[in-house]
Amino acid sequence: SQDLDAFFRQKKQMDFILEIDKSKNVFRQTYISDGSRKENDAEHSWHLAIMAFLLAEYANEPIDVLKVMKMVLIHDLVEIDAGDTYAYDSCGNETKKEREVAGARRLFSILPKDQEKLIWDLWEEFESGQTAEAKFARTLDHCQPVLLNDASGGRSWREHNVRREQIYGRNTRTHEGSEKVWRYVKGIIDKNIENGNIIQE
Amino acid sequence: SQDLDAFFRQKKQMDFILEIDKSKNVFRQTYISDGSRKENDAEHSWHLAIMAFLLAEYANEPIDVLKVMKMVLIHDLVEIDAGDTYAYDSCGNETKKEREVAGARRLFSILPKDQEKLIWDLWEEFESGQTAEAKFARTLDHCQPVLLNDASGGRSWREHNVRREQIYGRNTRTHEGSEKVWRYVKGIIDKNIENGNIIQE
Ligand SMILES: [Ca+2]
Repeated sequence: SQDLDAFFRQKKQMDFILEIDKSKNVFRQTYISDGSRKENDAEHSWHLAIMAFLLAEYANEPIDVLKVMKMVLIHDLVEIDAGDTYAYDSCGNETKKEREVAGARRLFSILPKDQEKLIWDLWEEFESGQTAEAKFARTLDHCQPVLLNDASGGRSWREHNVRREQIYGRNTRTHEGSEKVWRYVKGIIDKNIENGNIIQE
Repeated sequence: SQDLDAFFRQKKQMDFILEIDKSKNVFRQTYISDGSRKENDAEHSWHLAIMAFLLAEYANEPIDVLKVMKMVLIHDLVEIDAGDTYAYDSCGNETKKEREVAGARRLFSILPKDQEKLIWDLWEEFESGQTAEAKFARTLDHCQPVLLNDASGGRSWREHNVRREQIYGRNTRTHEGSEKVWRYVKGIIDKNIENGNIIQE
């Protein structure tokens, strides 16, 4: 019956909403700004979503802010199964895609079909990094940890002996979403190369 | 000069983005779904923003989803200064408004004037609960803790000896944003009255 279909649709949505609560236990390598503990994926994604609308004026191309916000809110959900892979962990990064696709398959399929597709499309668009929205979302995703690492005295960089070439290597495309946000954040990176938090080689 | 104005504008925005990181240290009375620890404001707001777009179809009136998402993302920022006031703490709730307005004044004024106004307007709209967007946002804000409390075995309700009349008293208007979300969540509340997690009087 229609009532039963409607009930199952809502049940699937609510089950998904409960399942993604696990993002609050996926911890990243970045410390929150006071350096007291590591940040988790839910907090990181919340931060990016606020940045998306406050910094939208700096996007290189016109963007659909709503789409960017949805994208950043869901971009790390796959890590519920796959775990966070540190940006400078080259072994982890070899198997990352495979683990994340498996995570996406299990997780997104909890939703009704139309919303499963919606979330897949947003995630794939983010991962491909080709559209104006994906480029801007990726710029935010790369810049936010720099703000936090700087605020926490470079702790995460120092713990991982991050080198100048690694951080610039990872950020070759960060300017594509926003020259202006990247320029600001590059200033912070350079300050941390000067003060030794990032290893100059 | 224009360059300097542009620099200061961006600096203010970035300072605000860093300041709101403190939301990750504002802990609520709700436990995350596995019951392992309490949830913080950043995580809670992230959860609501995803609920906003996945459950938008259940809003009683047509809503601007982007506005709802912005609203829920920023609605608890004032607690950085004011702290979380537990829904059933009647003393705390007497001074809550005053503390929160002071928090808003300090915090929002870090932003450039136009964005300070934008955030004030969103927060006041949320607090007043009169528009379709604010009603829907408030429904989500009241329903998400029920999902988590239920998932964590009613721990937060039991710790605070929450009574049926309190939870229904707090939720007299929750249906105004979405009859369908409220109906689903009311089913969960009633189950927890039956099983004794919420005190039936
Ligand atoms: Ca990631």
